[in-house]
Amino acid sequence: MSMTRHDQSAILSQAVEHADTVYLAGIVAKDLNKDVKGQTKEVLDEIDRLLAQCGSSKSKVLQCHIWVTDIRNRTPMNEVWTEWVDKKNLPARACVEAKLADPKALVEIMVIAGK
Amino acid sequence: MSMTRHDQSAILSQAVEHADTVYLAGIVAKDLNKDVKGQTKEVLDEIDRLLAQCGSSKSKVLQCHIWVTDIRNRTPMNEVWTEWVDKKNLPARACVEAKLADPKALVEIMVIAGK
Amino acid sequence: MSMTRHDQSAILSQAVEHADTVYLAGIVAKDLNKDVKGQTKEVLDEIDRLLAQCGSSKSKVLQCHIWVTDIRNRTPMNEVWTEWVDKKNLPARACVEAKLADPKALVEIMVIAGK
Repeated sequence: MSMTRHDQSAILSQAVEHADTVYLAGIVAKDLNKDVKGQTKEVLDEIDRLLAQCGSSKSKVLQCHIWVTDIRNRTPMNEVWTEWVDKKNLPARACVEAKLADPKALVEIMVIAGK
Repeated sequence: MSMTRHDQSAILSQAVEHADTVYLAGIVAKDLNKDVKGQTKEVLDEIDRLLAQCGSSKSKVLQCHIWVTDIRNRTPMNEVWTEWVDKKNLPARACVEAKLADPKALVEIMVIAGK
Repeated sequence: MSMTRHDQSAILSQAVEHADTVYLAGIVAKDLNKDVKGQTKEVLDEIDRLLAQCGSSKSKVLQCHIWVTDIRNRTPMNEVWTEWVDKKNLPARACVEAKLADPKALVEIMVIAGK
């Protein structure tokens, strides 16, 4: 089955296509000085960019893992999420608290999408 | 590739079918006053219901993420899990500790299943 | 769609094949007295073994969840990871901190791979 890998760094690909399924890396914001809403916006923008590169889009997201470093940040994260999602095509998701690699990162999202 | 979304709320779908794969949301119990065994039972009942709605079943679960808010609750959660699973068709799974959205939730399970 | 389950224990399968996708369990080291680099090596060796059993390989890994019990162990874990991965075929991945089932386990990795 065909696999296409995008934006490879030293340790990971930002996106991998496998047949009709797209697997993204866990995405954090580039500007980690922003608050959780600003970081969530950057994460979702990058997810849009990566999905487009794979021939997918936010309307085709299947399942998401969302990590917030403080579970109380789920509420402001969700405000940005709600503005972003395609309300007719909502993904399955889970959101739990976890400490992330960069201590300034407040939210990380990892996506599985269809094409 | 066809996608069918089930039980959409404001922010997520409880289940998404994509070709022959089914992605569920992270499920928590409805009655969060129950202990971890009671909550696990409710979670697995809801997973049964959602899988049936998607033409799948517990015998076709591929991979599960299980979060418990206290890793010591893995043992009572596993007792209920063991009664539930199809022992001839066990899923791959991981179980780690994480704080969940509702402070009274003790366990959350997110499933990928086949059809 | 065909499903093949490997190395079933009382509660889980170590690997499940579904059509052209392979789902592994969350893998921890067998010798939990090793340090994080030693444990990571054991985890990746076991992932190699399971993927081979499923007709896949590290060059076909699509997405990984990595949990470390202390996020500062991400650096030594990554050293072993970097030696292991196929640099031309890197998976998407996320690495977050979480407490694991066995208090001596320092790292756990769960894989989705293609064939």
